[in-house]
Amino acid sequence: MRTMKAAVYVRPGVISLEEKPVPTAGPGCAVVKITTTTICGTDIHILKGEFPVAAGRTIGHEPVGIIAELGAGVEGYSVGQRVVVGAITPCGQCYTCLDGHQAQCGGKPAGGWRFGNTIDGSQAEYLRVPNAMSNLEPIPDGLSDEQVLMCPDIMSTGFGGAESGDIRIGDTVVIFAQGPIGLCATAGAKLRGASLIIAVDGLQARLDVARVMGADVTIDYTKTDPLTEIMRLTHGRGVDVAIEALGTQVTFEQCLRALKPGGTLSSLGVYSGKLFMPLDAFAAGLGDHRIVTTLCPGGKERMRRLMNVVASGKVNLEPMVTHRFRLDEIELAYDLFANQRDGVLKVAITP
Amino acid sequence: MRTMKAAVYVRPGVISLEEKPVPTAGPGCAVVKITTTTICGTDIHILKGEFPVAAGRTIGHEPVGIIAELGAGVEGYSVGQRVVVGAITPCGQCYTCLDGHQAQCGGKPAGGWRFGNTIDGSQAEYLRVPNAMSNLEPIPDGLSDEQVLMCPDIMSTGFGGAESGDIRIGDTVVIFAQGPIGLCATAGAKLRGASLIIAVDGLQARLDVARVMGADVTIDYTKTDPLTEIMRLTHGRGVDVAIEALGTQVTFEQCLRALKPGGTLSSLGVYSGKLFMPLDAFAAGLGDHRIVTTLCPGGKERMRRLMNVVASGKVNLEPMVTHRFRLDEIELAYDLFANQRDGVLKVAITP
Amino acid sequence: MRTMKAAVYVRPGVISLEEKPVPTAGPGCAVVKITTTTICGTDIHILKGEFPVAAGRTIGHEPVGIIAELGAGVEGYSVGQRVVVGAITPCGQCYTCLDGHQAQCGGKPAGGWRFGNTIDGSQAEYLRVPNAMSNLEPIPDGLSDEQVLMCPDIMSTGFGGAESGDIRIGDTVVIFAQGPIGLCATAGAKLRGASLIIAVDGLQARLDVARVMGADVTIDYTKTDPLTEIMRLTHGRGVDVAIEALGTQVTFEQCLRALKPGGTLSSLGVYSGKLFMPLDAFAAGLGDHRIVTTLCPGGKERMRRLMNVVASGKVNLEPMVTHRFRLDEIELAYDLFANQRDGVLKVAITP
Amino acid sequence: MRTMKAAVYVRPGVISLEEKPVPTAGPGCAVVKITTTTICGTDIHILKGEFPVAAGRTIGHEPVGIIAELGAGVEGYSVGQRVVVGAITPCGQCYTCLDGHQAQCGGKPAGGWRFGNTIDGSQAEYLRVPNAMSNLEPIPDGLSDEQVLMCPDIMSTGFGGAESGDIRIGDTVVIFAQGPIGLCATAGAKLRGASLIIAVDGLQARLDVARVMGADVTIDYTKTDPLTEIMRLTHGRGVDVAIEALGTQVTFEQCLRALKPGGTLSSLGVYSGKLFMPLDAFAAGLGDHRIVTTLCPGGKERMRRLMNVVASGKVNLEPMVTHRFRLDEIELAYDLFANQRDGVLKVAITP
Repeated sequence: MRTMKAAVYVRPGVISLEEKPVPTAGPGCAVVKITTTTICGTDIHILKGEFPVAAGRTIGHEPVGIIAELGAGVEGYSVGQRVVVGAITPCGQCYTCLDGHQAQCGGKPAGGWRFGNTIDGSQAEYLRVPNAMSNLEPIPDGLSDEQVLMCPDIMSTGFGGAESGDIRIGDTVVIFAQGPIGLCATAGAKLRGASLIIAVDGLQARLDVARVMGADVTIDYTKTDPLTEIMRLTHGRGVDVAIEALGTQVTFEQCLRALKPGGTLSSLGVYSGKLFMPLDAFAAGLGDHRIVTTLCPGGKERMRRLMNVVASGKVNLEPMVTHRFRLDEIELAYDLFANQRDGVLKVAITP
Repeated sequence: MRTMKAAVYVRPGVISLEEKPVPTAGPGCAVVKITTTTICGTDIHILKGEFPVAAGRTIGHEPVGIIAELGAGVEGYSVGQRVVVGAITPCGQCYTCLDGHQAQCGGKPAGGWRFGNTIDGSQAEYLRVPNAMSNLEPIPDGLSDEQVLMCPDIMSTGFGGAESGDIRIGDTVVIFAQGPIGLCATAGAKLRGASLIIAVDGLQARLDVARVMGADVTIDYTKTDPLTEIMRLTHGRGVDVAIEALGTQVTFEQCLRALKPGGTLSSLGVYSGKLFMPLDAFAAGLGDHRIVTTLCPGGKERMRRLMNVVASGKVNLEPMVTHRFRLDEIELAYDLFANQRDGVLKVAITP
Repeated sequence: MRTMKAAVYVRPGVISLEEKPVPTAGPGCAVVKITTTTICGTDIHILKGEFPVAAGRTIGHEPVGIIAELGAGVEGYSVGQRVVVGAITPCGQCYTCLDGHQAQCGGKPAGGWRFGNTIDGSQAEYLRVPNAMSNLEPIPDGLSDEQVLMCPDIMSTGFGGAESGDIRIGDTVVIFAQGPIGLCATAGAKLRGASLIIAVDGLQARLDVARVMGADVTIDYTKTDPLTEIMRLTHGRGVDVAIEALGTQVTFEQCLRALKPGGTLSSLGVYSGKLFMPLDAFAAGLGDHRIVTTLCPGGKERMRRLMNVVASGKVNLEPMVTHRFRLDEIELAYDLFANQRDGVLKVAITP
Repeated sequence: MRTMKAAVYVRPGVISLEEKPVPTAGPGCAVVKITTTTICGTDIHILKGEFPVAAGRTIGHEPVGIIAELGAGVEGYSVGQRVVVGAITPCGQCYTCLDGHQAQCGGKPAGGWRFGNTIDGSQAEYLRVPNAMSNLEPIPDGLSDEQVLMCPDIMSTGFGGAESGDIRIGDTVVIFAQGPIGLCATAGAKLRGASLIIAVDGLQARLDVARVMGADVTIDYTKTDPLTEIMRLTHGRGVDVAIEALGTQVTFEQCLRALKPGGTLSSLGVYSGKLFMPLDAFAAGLGDHRIVTTLCPGGKERMRRLMNVVASGKVNLEPMVTHRFRLDEIELAYDLFANQRDGVLKVAITP
């Protein structure tokens, strides 16, 4: 039996590189040889034990690689093709997928998120891809691994925040938090035609990247009160859409306070602890507000569209790859990323 | 100076009938002689001092009457016409109205709600109607005052809950609380084509009316756990849309718990105190949930459409008028309605 | 090799009952033993040679039956289950399906329509169902074959016309032609909350059924000019939504002429010959009109929802089954149906 | 009585500069002193007698100017303010406006288009603006007349084509014809996040501007067959959205042929003569196509949003102003523009 290296969740605080059998492709599945992957904020939640997964689970949900094996019934692909697979792998055939909620595949909350959660993930030399017909997407010629590395998760999620917010041409949009997801939401807001994009964070380095991604105005909340500044910028009107990209009471609440009556809070964060609705900002329920949440859209059609955006040159997310590691250095990568040292945004991991 | 009787907010706990000058129609306005009006749950919040209005304000926002005077520039109407005016009176011409958020007229939270809030209301012999061109709607021949009495507020609000929830043909919908608003939401869910409508309340009399309004199943929460029953009825799937029609932590939370991943919570309640988001039911923000709030849509086009529904016979809200009072008995009416005695649903007040 | 009887397209003008091998279920497929099916207007187009299919093709796309065999990889079902399968059988996994256009599966026009078109259909003793995981839907207990016989095609199509028209509560809707599809569109308009539903046809018997399905007003175009009457009924306003359910220049054009500016023409008909746009009614392109076409939505989620509507009793399409035949009498059934004799609406065919 | 110069429609073929009384502001109206205006393709239709207006009508619907007089009831503005007014001037208060179809104000086709059509227009020294509260929009500091000159019509129309087409991030879009409207549609497609924008025209100069406006690929139809090229670029898939910006059979038909099944034809052109639907490209009505038409959105909220886009620098339409004339030279300007000489795109007219 062939073995491979894989980053495995052991117990809270410990993700370690282990030897595991190389997976085989069953019917409807494929095996992808990973050429590049990355670490996500969610992986840190797993590492810390805040988001429980089974001990022994290979972590990671952002695969870029080469088709190594195709299971029975998987047609239209060939071994050796370079592919991207979304973090979310919908089956396409259950009631929920057929009804358009592919990220909730199977009708379970976040049911479409399998990699590094309910099945083994991409921080390994090989990855077994379920429902391969719905999920394998060839990489257009001329695009490098790092150019498409953000497609599986943060680009899809961040853009999804702009899309679910239904941003219109001429809208004013604020994005609270400019980590990788927030930066992609900023880029998404620009793509949707917002005329004034306000990015809020507490780290100047991130605000600098936010400008590159499309922010017209940046607010360092350690120096300026965001709400005062937002109301000044909007002449007291409030923003049309506020995107929450952190998952905390403060940012959720500030989003709601920044909104105009009739505005939309598009929430991307993963919340823990307690979350209160500030009833004054919520107009006691009378403000015609919308609060929408979006789990990363997946599936090959989504990957196709996102890679088209990359190929068009309209968005360039390569500057977000700030560090590079080999798979056998992944514990170092986790250490750097979990502690947000050295200005890290995203790391590229290459087996 | 002609005077009239009007139900006036005096201080917390006191609404009393007083003599006030009959209003005159300024430019763009009209005066309507009230023939029938009613009391709303919101008026009880005002009475209790939970929702502050200015002392001396005439209460009430559900006017049915006859045009008594037309101000300069109000064309296409004639004195003596029977009209309905919505509880919400959008100007139609501000940025917010032109952008389709008429209930938030002027860009202020609930800014379109003026009657009995920021200007004098309908529990009086005469009512001054602002922005008359946007708001006066003639009553079709053959419809009685009581037949259209629910159009200004609860029918518009309840139907709005079904509309904002974007109920589709074949959906399963639960409505928590079967007061007047919830009953109208139940009727609205039926009109939108839901195939399974579940109504929840603790009073059997209200659940009986819910059946008349369109509920397929009723749940008395004093006897049956709603969530257990909803999951049984939906084979564990959860509902597509949950409508909150009370404004409490419990009903908000149960709505969220009843929802399928990807479902919509359509909120109509007016919340006070604290409201927190149950993060487990909210899937920590990963469930593709939508939470939408709806303030009663107003304006003459809305009234026209609602009266067409009444005229078609497809919905009959007359059974909701359980008690009748003359305007000079309104203090009795408040006492009955505030204490929900004698199975009261809605009262008709006739000056 | 087991054989079965099947209604086979031979050449223009000839569909005959032949012996064919019973199909077997390959991977991902199922075989259904047909218990009831029907003939559709499209089958008549095929019979007449107006819509070409391959010689030897078994016709029919409205299957109700029992699972006889399950291919590899088809899970969650069991042999012997009663099921309905939609006329349209999306794969769920191609780019087009994942993008929500399941009826255009594979990105080909009407690509999701396979039965009796690109593969053998349901007018036979057995039917091979492709992409079984996306398409087999168990029939709820208590529903008869005839109760659900309209789900696969005309109910889905007719309701789809109302849904694509985005009918709102209080809308006025006209449906041109009250054949089986138009009757279902009428039922759909009622389910969506239209307050005035106008049905147009030239046969009194169909207009009588239209009333049962939800029409408030019927117009016999052989006696009354529909446009004059529609403008009278709408006070010159025009209708909000016009549904075309025949596929002719006259009905298409009258739909457009009946519309208000900003209205929607929801087209269900299959057009042949020439179709031109009446530019006056189209306001030369300046009327903010929408013209939307809808091919019958399929897939098991759609079937589930439609059968829920049937089970709820909110719509009863059984009166549309006017005649019954055994499969070996199907040539008689075609003769009756093609010539619309004896007031036929739909026939039930039972092998 | 003060008089002014105005470009007046006399008879087919003749628009001449005449002396007319300076208008006065009645109740609800305003008078704007025009500082810059332009000529639109529609004006040429009027000139040629193809679109009938009353003899003596002042032409023009693209006003930039200074408030000269405010009628009774017009509040929140002051004489001397620089303003833009949309080509379409909705009242905001009729049934149709309140229902969101402001361009069809009054429920008449194109009813919101009044300037230079049913009332005197902007090619004059002064302009009377009806429904001033809905229509006067102050120009942000720092923007020149020419920077905002496209907002009233072609920017609003062209962007409207992209908006009504519901272009999504990652879409492929083709725009047929790159006159001023088509160029703005191209800019709009970019603002909405299309990843591949294909512009088609027969003049190289216009295709060059199309590139500046956001086209990724341009097709000169005099040299290359657009459909062959579009299918090559989309790998046979067809485009998601096709925008028609000319109003001819050929461009309408090519739009439909370029579309994927399930795609949207967003039509901006003004059609004359005959318009046929190519039934093969229309999939006989089975292709889930949408055809949507958009008349220039107007009203002050629309102007506010468009000027925000200009102020943000995200779109620069100044290159479209290729020629400048004084009002008393307007007959020369018409001659140049009607004959499309000298590479003219838009002319600026300054009284």
